[in-house]
Amino acid sequence: MQVVVTGGAGMLGKKLVKAILKKGTLAGKDGLQEKVDRIVVLDVVPTADLPNDSRITYTQGEVFDAGLMKKLVTPGTGSVFHFAAIVSAGAEADTDLGYRVNLDGTRVVLDACRALGTTPRVVFTSSVAVYGGDMPSVIPDDFPLRPQTSYGSQKAMGELLLNDYTRKGFIDGRALRLPTIVVRPGKPNLAASTFASSIIREPLSGQDAVCPVDPKTMMPLLSPRKTVEAFLRAHDLPGTSWGSNRALHLPSLDVSVNEMADGLKKLAGADAYKRIKWQVEPRIQAIVATWPGRLNSARARAMGFESDASVEAIINAFIEDDLRPNV
Amino acid sequence: MQVVVTGGAGMLGKKLVKAILKKGTLAGKDGLQEKVDRIVVLDVVPTADLPNDSRITYTQGEVFDAGLMKKLVTPGTGSVFHFAAIVSAGAEADTDLGYRVNLDGTRVVLDACRALGTTPRVVFTSSVAVYGGDMPSVIPDDFPLRPQTSYGSQKAMGELLLNDYTRKGFIDGRALRLPTIVVRPGKPNLAASTFASSIIREPLSGQDAVCPVDPKTMMPLLSPRKTVEAFLRAHDLPGTSWGSNRALHLPSLDVSVNEMADGLKKLAGADAYKRIKWQVEPRIQAIVATWPGRLNSARARAMGFESDASVEAIINAFIEDDLRPNV
Repeated sequence: MQVVVTGGAGMLGKKLVKAILKKGTLAGKDGLQEKVDRIVVLDVVPTADLPNDSRITYTQGEVFDAGLMKKLVTPGTGSVFHFAAIVSAGAEADTDLGYRVNLDGTRVVLDACRALGTTPRVVFTSSVAVYGGDMPSVIPDDFPLRPQTSYGSQKAMGELLLNDYTRKGFIDGRALRLPTIVVRPGKPNLAASTFASSIIREPLSGQDAVCPVDPKTMMPLLSPRKTVEAFLRAHDLPGTSWGSNRALHLPSLDVSVNEMADGLKKLAGADAYKRIKWQVEPRIQAIVATWPGRLNSARARAMGFESDASVEAIINAFIEDDLRPNV
Repeated sequence: MQVVVTGGAGMLGKKLVKAILKKGTLAGKDGLQEKVDRIVVLDVVPTADLPNDSRITYTQGEVFDAGLMKKLVTPGTGSVFHFAAIVSAGAEADTDLGYRVNLDGTRVVLDACRALGTTPRVVFTSSVAVYGGDMPSVIPDDFPLRPQTSYGSQKAMGELLLNDYTRKGFIDGRALRLPTIVVRPGKPNLAASTFASSIIREPLSGQDAVCPVDPKTMMPLLSPRKTVEAFLRAHDLPGTSWGSNRALHLPSLDVSVNEMADGLKKLAGADAYKRIKWQVEPRIQAIVATWPGRLNSARARAMGFESDASVEAIINAFIEDDLRPNV
């Protein structure tokens, strides 16, 4: 079978591609594991730093390009993982681009899948940014979606589309609402949540990092490792496990920023801990305060999805997978 | 000021246009009533049976035609009422047309409003079809949206877009989730809910009507008269009354089909009552069973929206407004 990964040059997309190559199979239409012969990767960058593997084909292009998408999602495509998106700050700043990529792009992907006539599995990357407004201290599974960003609105619309297309038998869709992914390898980006990775990643490399929020601030975390596991599980679970509601938030480790710093101290010592500079930036604190701090993920846990066991486990996964993968 | 009404040749659109003509004014940007100089009506039919009034301009066209919409939503447009839609059964049968009209059309309308740069008021016609799946016996205001039709999905997506555009200051949006509108004048249509009007309308004209659902079936009802009042109220209320959540379901009169028939009997006598033929059609019963039967509309009531007082009041409004408007 062929697998298509949009946004496959991104951090999660790349890790998923590697995981599929390693696993070698994915659940096919009848639920049995089928050999993955070809992974078609789409992203906007000229070249993707992907493994040298004959099963991979890389194409540079825009996800909202319907003509291109039809050329990629060809007969024999059993599964599509849809990561391509304009992230939160980008979609907030450029409304048109956000809707074009995050809404139109998702529709182009789902319409290409629908055109196959074979009900392929589609795993869609949603976000806890679909929640917003007045929220309880713990978000339950059935909490209404009241996004307060364009990004969250577009993800919520994508979920509605995915559910409708699934109900109509066009696709076999599954959507995962991601919490804050920590520890992201690489450099800080413009996301308001970037500090959550920085305060672990930088001290581990002997560099200072600023924590711009109050130490008591709650963050729902998930490691890239567990996220990739969740995408594979979301894909392979039978449709009956999902029922008619094809979107859920993933189990997260809900900890305060202070507990994150304590985890770093336990694992890397007091010197690393002291690299965290506590300087509240009201602009960042204000944004983070609108995010859900805790999630009750009973539904996902019942379906076998797992959170990380501890902050130390999250840091260890980062060290093993990204910092010293060859050690 | 100029007012644009999409779908203005439809039953509700036409009644709203007449109500605006009669009222003569609508709330302007500062909340004060402003004279309505011009009502631009768009619909797909060649000619609309609208009052002969120099303030009305009628244009035939598609709501998803962005070029046309820009020509209609010109500077000076203070308000847009967006009714144009493919109804439930139509959007279910023709997925592409449903998304083109109900999703793309709504986006075209909101983008034309946004292009003005003057934050016009937009009143969007949503539906209780945004609810679905497992529902409690009474739907509260904050119930999550899990539509089980393409129509409901598209309306939920329209609400998300309207909320996002409002939050960003592009428009001043308001969305009303309509229950079953009863009594609709004219002939039965293909909607599964058409019987709810037929069992009142036909007996009043000495004709038989089939009731295809169990007499105990609950229906949330609203008369066209109260619906038009609600659109004017939704428009004129200050944005602060709405807050950040710009969508709500309207107060409805939640009665059983049996109570509807009893109301007819009280008002029009036993002969009219006997015109209702009780013949359960499992196909219709199954569809109606997926709809919310009762709604708790505390939020809308607190904002001054009203339901009809009784089945008799609904029937009397129909007789006065549609059956014998000139008596």
